[in-house]
Amino acid sequence: MKVGVLGARGKVGAEVCHAVEAAADTELVAAVDAGDDVEQLATAGAQVVVDFTHPDVVMDHLRFCIEHGIHAVVGTTGFDRSRLDQLETWLADAPEVGVLVAPNFSIGAILMMRFAAVAAPFFESVEVVELHHPDKADAPSGTAQRTAEMIAAARREAGSAPMPDATSTGLDGARGADVEGVRVHGLRVRGLVAHQEVVLGAAGETLTIRHDSLDRVSFTPGVLTGVRSIAAHPGLTVGLEHFLDLD
Amino acid sequence: MKVGVLGARGKVGAEVCHAVEAAADTELVAAVDAGDDVEQLATAGAQVVVDFTHPDVVMDHLRFCIEHGIHAVVGTTGFDRSRLDQLETWLADAPEVGVLVAPNFSIGAILMMRFAAVAAPFFESVEVVELHHPDKADAPSGTAQRTAEMIAAARREAGSAPMPDATSTGLDGARGADVEGVRVHGLRVRGLVAHQEVVLGAAGETLTIRHDSLDRVSFTPGVLTGVRSIAAHPGLTVGLEHFLDLD
Amino acid sequence: MKVGVLGARGKVGAEVCHAVEAAADTELVAAVDAGDDVEQLATAGAQVVVDFTHPDVVMDHLRFCIEHGIHAVVGTTGFDRSRLDQLETWLADAPEVGVLVAPNFSIGAILMMRFAAVAAPFFESVEVVELHHPDKADAPSGTAQRTAEMIAAARREAGSAPMPDATSTGLDGARGADVEGVRVHGLRVRGLVAHQEVVLGAAGETLTIRHDSLDRVSFTPGVLTGVRSIAAHPGLTVGLEHFLDLD
Amino acid sequence: MKVGVLGARGKVGAEVCHAVEAAADTELVAAVDAGDDVEQLATAGAQVVVDFTHPDVVMDHLRFCIEHGIHAVVGTTGFDRSRLDQLETWLADAPEVGVLVAPNFSIGAILMMRFAAVAAPFFESVEVVELHHPDKADAPSGTAQRTAEMIAAARREAGSAPMPDATSTGLDGARGADVEGVRVHGLRVRGLVAHQEVVLGAAGETLTIRHDSLDRVSFTPGVLTGVRSIAAHPGLTVGLEHFLDLD
Repeated sequence: MKVGVLGARGKVGAEVCHAVEAAADTELVAAVDAGDDVEQLATAGAQVVVDFTHPDVVMDHLRFCIEHGIHAVVGTTGFDRSRLDQLETWLADAPEVGVLVAPNFSIGAILMMRFAAVAAPFFESVEVVELHHPDKADAPSGTAQRTAEMIAAARREAGSAPMPDATSTGLDGARGADVEGVRVHGLRVRGLVAHQEVVLGAAGETLTIRHDSLDRVSFTPGVLTGVRSIAAHPGLTVGLEHFLDLD
Repeated sequence: MKVGVLGARGKVGAEVCHAVEAAADTELVAAVDAGDDVEQLATAGAQVVVDFTHPDVVMDHLRFCIEHGIHAVVGTTGFDRSRLDQLETWLADAPEVGVLVAPNFSIGAILMMRFAAVAAPFFESVEVVELHHPDKADAPSGTAQRTAEMIAAARREAGSAPMPDATSTGLDGARGADVEGVRVHGLRVRGLVAHQEVVLGAAGETLTIRHDSLDRVSFTPGVLTGVRSIAAHPGLTVGLEHFLDLD
Repeated sequence: MKVGVLGARGKVGAEVCHAVEAAADTELVAAVDAGDDVEQLATAGAQVVVDFTHPDVVMDHLRFCIEHGIHAVVGTTGFDRSRLDQLETWLADAPEVGVLVAPNFSIGAILMMRFAAVAAPFFESVEVVELHHPDKADAPSGTAQRTAEMIAAARREAGSAPMPDATSTGLDGARGADVEGVRVHGLRVRGLVAHQEVVLGAAGETLTIRHDSLDRVSFTPGVLTGVRSIAAHPGLTVGLEHFLDLD
Repeated sequence: MKVGVLGARGKVGAEVCHAVEAAADTELVAAVDAGDDVEQLATAGAQVVVDFTHPDVVMDHLRFCIEHGIHAVVGTTGFDRSRLDQLETWLADAPEVGVLVAPNFSIGAILMMRFAAVAAPFFESVEVVELHHPDKADAPSGTAQRTAEMIAAARREAGSAPMPDATSTGLDGARGADVEGVRVHGLRVRGLVAHQEVVLGAAGETLTIRHDSLDRVSFTPGVLTGVRSIAAHPGLTVGLEHFLDLD
């Protein structure tokens, strides 16, 4: 499979290039970055393009890919509803082309979120703890916030009762942030990379699901899964979980 | 729903009695133990019977229930293939009756095993650690062994490669027990109750699924789920997971 | 050693009675509770009294013990500076009597706090996470707050720099409560009992110290240690750690 | 403080060079590797030399340092009793010179081992779990083996009873390796770096001490501590713990 990479000299893009070169069934035919001509993706015969670039340029890249019949696997951020609608409009004219937009390519993180949401209705209590290095600007992390939203949605759908909490006295912040009724706690500790734990509990037992991301390279198996699966999934897909067999 | 309990004065059975009495939608109509007459289950109008007794007597109990059109939820151990075949033969003559035989009623333990099996093919490495009090006679635990078998089966089915392990020197036992290619480690530490951790890893990331069982009462929500679901599942079901919505 | 127990019918006191009876080197000579006559402690020849009662009555108990030359091991709460001063005044007239006042008799909890304080100056970052059942009224727990204060004191004494934290955006409470510059997070999850984790980190490594208290019985070894040690420590001692060999 | 580095182009040595350059109170005056002339250490006026080289050459380096009155901080392996005796003989003629030989410069690992040994006599049970990447050749790890030996020694000295273990049936290896009566378990999982957990338990409670080493850079604070402390500790010191204030 012939693969082009957009954002090839960025940190993530460079890892993607290495992974595409290393895998037996993929071939890197174009490594493109800012200042390069995207036309070379078509010239080189790329069947799939991987895009880890910037919200300002990613839509131009995707219009180009769709017009040229090239599938796209996209890790660039900034996709709101209107951008996704635009992609679907473009894809309507190219029914054989597939585009995957995924906020997270770490299979471990995707499974953690999925398992947390599946398990949440079976337990009285669920809380989320995320642990990161202290140079991170936002708290809680985007992944923790998304996890809490998925937990809250699963519990709403199942008609779960509100979680018990008898706290009546204490210090501000001790019980963490409230994301749709799910408590989220963020630690910032030197030496950590990116970690998250979901703690679920019922009478007499707890279930803990923890994801530790220690190296950026953890994204590449998910990207390769996207590259290998996209041709079989024409149209727009949001979230790598749709390409994983989780049942 | 009218419920009878067999083994009502045993440790687990007594907890089941309390739980059946406490729940709003179930009523305890017969609490039977060794020496009591099982006929009272029928006399009292039990619709479902819960059996936590002994392998020596459970088959007689189940024949009685099936003959009297009473559903059964069974936590008693000792069911091999020939016993399950016998149950299916009896149930063929009572097509409206349901029997659930489950080795484990802890929903947390069931989810841990299920998630471990679903996730196993996505990772290069998977190992199991179980931690129990030091009065336990077997190592590894039955749950750990079953988890390892489920992981091994999922990986065989997915065509996963053998796990990497460069160990060439060391001490006997350091790498744990080998259960169908999955390493299983058992700790015995005073103060612990029953705990298990499945550690899955791929380049740059790990996913850890941990179950802590701290109190026998953790079995009761699963038993109640069985009681509430069994009437809608005539025939033989092995494993509570079939009554949980996990997709 | 002849031991009397005050508060003998309370939950903790009853466990202490069992432990004193079970140990080979201690003998339970008086089990006293509200309504009983404390004089029987002297009559029975108690050499040490263990007090798990109430702040309203504990000072009367201790005056009685000191006047009768009986050592005391005290787990009752509510000791402020003025009460400790009063005890020292009374003890000045009974120089052979020892009184131990301890907020915590769990040796695991004491070691966790001690190790956290010893280690804190060697790491850039330290945070505390406590996890309890959801019926608890206060957050963070008293133990977590005390741990954070000990960490803060150790770092002040060592001249440690403030901890790094680049958080500039997020949700209220996400970074926990601030106890003298140490972040403390409290989870409330059904199925948990009483747990605490101290996470310390420096470039490239983290050290985590976790204490899990699963059963009230965890207090009894510490109480017995107090009982066995108090005669050799006349005067007032605050904190069981002074009777443990930790160097 | 003027510092020379031997093994400056090795992985660890290069990190040491960076750390010495980055610290405000140390100056890198000589970076020496195989093929370079060690005389430049003296010429450049190095007060302390850090050696991360090879067992074949380290003794020559240290003789040179001691003869030239240069303190040494040594992370090179292979020091047996006879080598340490040789160093002491040389140092007898240079009473102002200090040499630190340390098997481990990670302060987190040192504290983990120390705390485990201090705590071990207070608990009925202690086990060690080490977790590493699957390219590691030995199991258990050297650190785990050393930790178990320290635990065993502390328990012997305190007269602790043997640990309880009722295991009577099971699979070979399930209970790990036996190191002087302490059970040690080794996991090999892709994605892990170097991790170790010591689990201690008594009735009703457990204490867990965990060290996670995620990056080689974790050794540098310990090396700098050695560099800053060595001048005040003439003679031979084995183990960085002697330079840490742990009481």
